[in-house]
Amino acid sequence: MNAIILSIGDELLIGQTINTNSAWIGQLLTTIGIKIIEANTIADSQSAITAALDEGLKKADMMLITGGLGPTSDDLTLPSLAQYFKSELVWDEKVWQNIQHIFHMRGREINESSKQLAYVPHNATVIYNTQGTAPGTIFYQNGKMVVSMPGVPYEMKAMMELDVLPFIKRHFKLPFILNRHILTAGVGETQLASKLTDFERELPEGFKLAYLPNIGKVKLRISGTNADETALKAEMDLQFAKAAEAVERYTYGFDNDTLEQVVGKLLIERSKNLCIAESCSGGYISHLITSVAGSSNYFKGAFITYSNEMKMSQLGVQYSTLEAFGAVSAETVKEMLSGSLKASQADVAIAVSGVAGPGGGSEDKPVGTVYIGIADRHQHYIRKFSFTTHRERNIQLSGVVALMLLRNFLLGRLQTEV
Amino acid sequence: MNAIILSIGDELLIGQTINTNSAWIGQLLTTIGIKIIEANTIADSQSAITAALDEGLKKADMMLITGGLGPTSDDLTLPSLAQYFKSELVWDEKVWQNIQHIFHMRGREINESSKQLAYVPHNATVIYNTQGTAPGTIFYQNGKMVVSMPGVPYEMKAMMELDVLPFIKRHFKLPFILNRHILTAGVGETQLASKLTDFERELPEGFKLAYLPNIGKVKLRISGTNADETALKAEMDLQFAKAAEAVERYTYGFDNDTLEQVVGKLLIERSKNLCIAESCSGGYISHLITSVAGSSNYFKGAFITYSNEMKMSQLGVQYSTLEAFGAVSAETVKEMLSGSLKASQADVAIAVSGVAGPGGGSEDKPVGTVYIGIADRHQHYIRKFSFTTHRERNIQLSGVVALMLLRNFLLGRLQTEV
Repeated sequence: MNAIILSIGDELLIGQTINTNSAWIGQLLTTIGIKIIEANTIADSQSAITAALDEGLKKADMMLITGGLGPTSDDLTLPSLAQYFKSELVWDEKVWQNIQHIFHMRGREINESSKQLAYVPHNATVIYNTQGTAPGTIFYQNGKMVVSMPGVPYEMKAMMELDVLPFIKRHFKLPFILNRHILTAGVGETQLASKLTDFERELPEGFKLAYLPNIGKVKLRISGTNADETALKAEMDLQFAKAAEAVERYTYGFDNDTLEQVVGKLLIERSKNLCIAESCSGGYISHLITSVAGSSNYFKGAFITYSNEMKMSQLGVQYSTLEAFGAVSAETVKEMLSGSLKASQADVAIAVSGVAGPGGGSEDKPVGTVYIGIADRHQHYIRKFSFTTHRERNIQLSGVVALMLLRNFLLGRLQTEV
Repeated sequence: MNAIILSIGDELLIGQTINTNSAWIGQLLTTIGIKIIEANTIADSQSAITAALDEGLKKADMMLITGGLGPTSDDLTLPSLAQYFKSELVWDEKVWQNIQHIFHMRGREINESSKQLAYVPHNATVIYNTQGTAPGTIFYQNGKMVVSMPGVPYEMKAMMELDVLPFIKRHFKLPFILNRHILTAGVGETQLASKLTDFERELPEGFKLAYLPNIGKVKLRISGTNADETALKAEMDLQFAKAAEAVERYTYGFDNDTLEQVVGKLLIERSKNLCIAESCSGGYISHLITSVAGSSNYFKGAFITYSNEMKMSQLGVQYSTLEAFGAVSAETVKEMLSGSLKASQADVAIAVSGVAGPGGGSEDKPVGTVYIGIADRHQHYIRKFSFTTHRERNIQLSGVVALMLLRNFLLGRLQTEV
């Protein structure tokens, strides 16, 4: 079973927008055993869309189209599809109600042009948009499928998960494929690979291991395929357990876990709440923690003490400490930890101080020098890190490493494993 | 003059890597007046590459190919091109010396397989790789150009800038093109369009206006082309000024400005420093502010008071206020403003409290209800917003709107224009 992903939009061609939809869809279809043979981007033009459909349906079983569904005259996907599939556009009251609902939710007046979005092809399955106004459509003819979705990533993703995947599973016979992920942080690919040499060599037929690195983290994907579903599941359980054991000390979670969710769960399990004192990371760690729904159950708050005065007035960092050791020091981080615990009455604290860059570095403490500490009322741990010369990366790495340290602290492993 | 961008690599199709090369090349070619008609991604397969060349050269004047140039057996771009253009592969001593140099620089032993990279097509222009081992090639036949470059972004970028662009300018006659951008926030496309109706209708031949929306912001792009460069520049200045005037009240910057930089510059110009009191936005606004290098010059810090206790202990919000009006209220935000100004001794404060969701909504204050306030020692402004049902968007919208309000406050326009 193979597929072509087709992205429509001048903004993609001229590079105004980086196409992330295509990779997301590619990843999702790959996990269910559909092979992506092409991922093409074309202009908002009826002739280009028609030509792409003609060419694509010769080669592929399905085409997944994103973009070009808005109410303006340069949105040509739906008219092009309607002509291609000889559709009449008919009024869909449910779509119209959804459009009204979305406008109402956003506190905006409905404008006339959006009425047009409620006309859908009579010979297609309509995908109702739970996140926005433009509906999607699925044409399924002669065993081939053409799906059209909005280009807005979160609208597209909701449609893929709620409607398109179930539709594909109903209408196409797919091979048995399983994917499992092991999520690691604070360790490089090379070091992981050295732990997995035996595992990789002994992988059975139909099984593969991939390394997917991303700022401070590496995701390991084990994928397997087999004609027999039961045998596949059993073999995957075996292989997954084997790999997980080999990299256990670097692993924070599996599959769809996120580091911030894992940390949140641990805090809940241990009935601990958290405060954060951030300097160079400037609020990023608090943002990670609060990106998790329900984080108010364990996050008391944070002190973003970007200036020395704030470190002193809010956290009680001593002037003498700043004078003697500087804001970027283990001594200052230690006082940030105790000060934030005291001020917030939280059980556990993270504190971070460093040189994010590009300015502010010295020979002694070059850009990328970051001290990260974790403490409760009884103990504290502080580590010095040397990250990169790049401001954004230093902020992001501070976040990943701080959360990984907090996790290990909560698990009682901070002394040995970071 | 038009072009096709062709990316080669299974890792792109399965979504392991997001294709950023394509957008980068598209942007660069667009600025010199080359129209991108397609951006296609295909597998590491000789038949796919040959088919893409056949199809592509029918439609385009040039094809820019990235990827598939490594020394391993699944790197098939060069053999495919060599066969397509009936090339013999010949030894290139200069490429070989560069490969040795790169290995030496990286402190690595040369392996046998990399010798193969020094064989290049006899009938192509070789592009020497200043950043890595694999050379690029340019085939230029019958007025059509096919460029092949490595998939590693920084290797490709160096080749484009140092060799490919000069080659294109030598061999193709390009039109003069200019692009200018007006950056707006806190206003929808529809409302902007209503302000620009006259402007759009009166746009001269060769000029276009595009709307590029992105969470709370809309970027307007005016592009123009003309055979006469001086006339183009004069006309662009005129059109740009006209559009900028029409949407002036929504505009925070131009071209490469960012909202957080604009706000930072205003704070510096007015010698004001800033503190932030965040509840539902959870540190995101502080993260935006501190993503700007040098923000320590005007950012004192922030209070991420995620719990009511922190609102009371850190900001002096009254228990009675929380009891009577709730944490999500203008009254609480007012006390957050005055409390943060007092505790930080900053000149200006932002305060935000709302329901980010997905939980915590009520009939009275549904998910997406957010109060945002700005204050100095003399005055305060607080507005209520109804954003979306989506946690991440609500956090991001809070950030954009808060910075836009701060900007308008600093410009003395908050009462009339938000």
